[in-house]
Amino acid sequence: YMYLVKKSKGVLVRAWEMGTSDPRKIIFSAKMGLALTLISLLVFFKLPGSEVSNHYLWAILTIIVIFEFSIGGTFSKGCHVGLGTLSAGALALGTAEISDMTGKCADVFNTASIFVVAFLGTYAKLYPTMKPYEYGFRVFLLTYCYVIVSGYRSGEFMETAVSRLLMIALGASIGLIVNICIYPIWAGDDLHNLITNNFVNVATSLEGCVNGYLNSAHYDLISVVDTGYRSAVESKSQEDTLMGFAAWEPPHGPYRSFRYPWKMYVKVGGALRHCAFMVMALHGCILSQIQAPEEKREAFRNELQKVGLEGAKVLRLIGQKLKKMERLNPIEDILEEIHQAAEQLQSKIDKKSYLLVNVENWEIGNDGIEVSNIDEEGLISRKLDYESHKEAALLPRQTWWPPFLLSISSIMWKSESADLSLATFASLLIEFAARLENLVNAYDELCDIANFKEAFSG
Amino acid sequence: YMYLVKKSKGVLVRAWEMGTSDPRKIIFSAKMGLALTLISLLVFFKLPGSEVSNHYLWAILTIIVIFEFSIGGTFSKGCHVGLGTLSAGALALGTAEISDMTGKCADVFNTASIFVVAFLGTYAKLYPTMKPYEYGFRVFLLTYCYVIVSGYRSGEFMETAVSRLLMIALGASIGLIVNICIYPIWAGDDLHNLITNNFVNVATSLEGCVNGYLNSAHYDLISVVDTGYRSAVESKSQEDTLMGFAAWEPPHGPYRSFRYPWKMYVKVGGALRHCAFMVMALHGCILSQIQAPEEKREAFRNELQKVGLEGAKVLRLIGQKLKKMERLNPIEDILEEIHQAAEQLQSKIDKKSYLLVNVENWEIGNDGIEVSNIDEEGLISRKLDYESHKEAALLPRQTWWPPFLLSISSIMWKSESADLSLATFASLLIEFAARLENLVNAYDELCDIANFKEAFSG
Repeated sequence: YMYLVKKSKGVLVRAWEMGTSDPRKIIFSAKMGLALTLISLLVFFKLPGSEVSNHYLWAILTIIVIFEFSIGGTFSKGCHVGLGTLSAGALALGTAEISDMTGKCADVFNTASIFVVAFLGTYAKLYPTMKPYEYGFRVFLLTYCYVIVSGYRSGEFMETAVSRLLMIALGASIGLIVNICIYPIWAGDDLHNLITNNFVNVATSLEGCVNGYLNSAHYDLISVVDTGYRSAVESKSQEDTLMGFAAWEPPHGPYRSFRYPWKMYVKVGGALRHCAFMVMALHGCILSQIQAPEEKREAFRNELQKVGLEGAKVLRLIGQKLKKMERLNPIEDILEEIHQAAEQLQSKIDKKSYLLVNVENWEIGNDGIEVSNIDEEGLISRKLDYESHKEAALLPRQTWWPPFLLSISSIMWKSESADLSLATFASLLIEFAARLENLVNAYDELCDIANFKEAFSG
Repeated sequence: YMYLVKKSKGVLVRAWEMGTSDPRKIIFSAKMGLALTLISLLVFFKLPGSEVSNHYLWAILTIIVIFEFSIGGTFSKGCHVGLGTLSAGALALGTAEISDMTGKCADVFNTASIFVVAFLGTYAKLYPTMKPYEYGFRVFLLTYCYVIVSGYRSGEFMETAVSRLLMIALGASIGLIVNICIYPIWAGDDLHNLITNNFVNVATSLEGCVNGYLNSAHYDLISVVDTGYRSAVESKSQEDTLMGFAAWEPPHGPYRSFRYPWKMYVKVGGALRHCAFMVMALHGCILSQIQAPEEKREAFRNELQKVGLEGAKVLRLIGQKLKKMERLNPIEDILEEIHQAAEQLQSKIDKKSYLLVNVENWEIGNDGIEVSNIDEEGLISRKLDYESHKEAALLPRQTWWPPFLLSISSIMWKSESADLSLATFASLLIEFAARLENLVNAYDELCDIANFKEAFSG
């Protein structure tokens, strides 16, 4: 009994948290309740006993099917369902006409037509690009079967089809009016916020990555790093869905032009994801089984940190501008400082690259005669190296990779490739800086097409 | 007119291709047709005029809702829909009992109950973890509204609920019998094949990457590379869905134990994806704007190629074993050769690392006095370097990145970081080799839990 109390308390707390973090969910639920109450009031009082209202089930069904969270979703689903119903109705009436002409074979003809239509409809639904129209196909099949079967039973195809259609129209209009007129929830807003937040997330993640790499002890940072780029990397399908819905929405709020370029938003999101992949690779370096010794990382600390900071600054700035829907300042080059930082990192690597390699083992000069000797000597020190790596790997780490992925490899890692891992980290960071340029270009393009306002227009 | 002919010809060709590449889709469509035909035959002939069959719409609706491609999908959806219907029916009957007691206020009470139930049901549906039960919630709302409304109209709540329930049970049983008894399609098979194919895809991709990097001219290879790792990287949500369905399926075919460890399949898929991320990073090196000169790549050709070949061999071998559901050979270490290859690559880097850095610019010895001089000289040669990179970048490349991502950065890349990009490629390849170990461990665990047969049992 105590368990039940505890459990239901937990459910209430979570429900409360969801409501306070996104009040739109409460409003949407209330709208759904309102729409269903309205339709049942109509059935209770307004149309008692009339022939048409016998089919009120269709009105309830329609509301439940088309009521989606966002306006775009409601429109697109409503359109699919409407198309499915109308085409199925027309097809069924056509079939009924033909079956009338066949006389005695009408039964057989109707049954066969159901098989053929169900086969073709299902087969078409399985085609990969038809995935978004799944609901439409289901409604199509339902309507077709129902009209044929009920028309056959009553002998009145036309009446069946028309009265259903009226109820469906009633349900659809109540659903649309309630959903659109009362506090509309726009998929476009969601898309805008999703991409804006991803900028901040990737920036936080990048800073966390660079700091985490330099202060290799602070593993608690990693979870921040992780959730940051992860949201950007994994949001592709969400962005695509929202774009599909947003394209259905009429101009509203700050998105005033008629065919608003949501596609460009997704393109900016793609460019951001391209950067986020680099942050993921940087994070991979932190989790890697091969690690450069701390003193060598220390030598590049300032330069690495500078690139990380400047990169995060650029991301945050673009994110803010996108939030306010402003253009970038055309006079100032937003990328100037990160380019400088990247160049400093490069010249540092240039000058200190002896830290990244093992000069003693070079073949130049000793003609490769002593190679076998060196190798054997090397093996011992490497075994020690391996032991120390092993300890490092046993530190607790929180990641979204399954934990078994952090077990230690039995390859004996050589210290040279450990040093090279620092080079890898640096060169991934430079590649990140290079990719920022594409992001800025994509953002400029979005500004042009979506007609964002100038940064300092007033 | 000619356009229409052409278009419909195209549709037919694509439909034919889909059917020949996966005949199960044809069979599934025929099963759907059969189930709907059966139910309409029952309505036509068996139950004419009886009270219960007036609600045949519910049987059709149930079939259309629960008929899913895989058996697991059908079971899980059927269960959700059944639960939704039963709980909504019970709740509605309970509400009706109470509303009877309220006497005159019954109308108001019923209407209010619809609002409250719709509100709570919709709110619960919006909770993120409730996503898979979406259909269940919709059916719940539909049933509740319908039973309340129709019960109120006729005054017979119980009769409404029971006759609908009978028709739903009829629809569900016809749907389940047809879908399961005639050529069942298993989600477990799909999951097995998906992961098996991903092994081959990643292997092909890895080989393509290494070859593409060494023969930098052959850009036509890249599309093969691309589709290979991409399928593994992007299949996460598909694997999760299939696992969810497969868990509902009874033991069948080669998967004989009662609680088959589908979760371990997904874990192996995850370990493979972890390797595929490395292939993605390698591919990123090929597409990178910073490229090492060809003669330096040539110096490491044999070692790089060896690691690539051995890595692909390991992946293909595990893929084959998984296909046949066999254990790995316990005597032979499958990773021995790739470890050797990785060590050779490491000692080569060890000995030839002077190729990766620019010794003349080192600060040791010249005390940093001439630094400013060197920098200015360097700038000129770097500009030239940049021009040659520019040309390389203008070669046509096919990728799944949006094309704008390949534009050239205006940072002046220094030749030193160009050389380091070779080091990056090598160290990513070594990291790939290290991650293979986790894959082998995950596969061994799968073999143990799923009780795969020994490799050479006969």
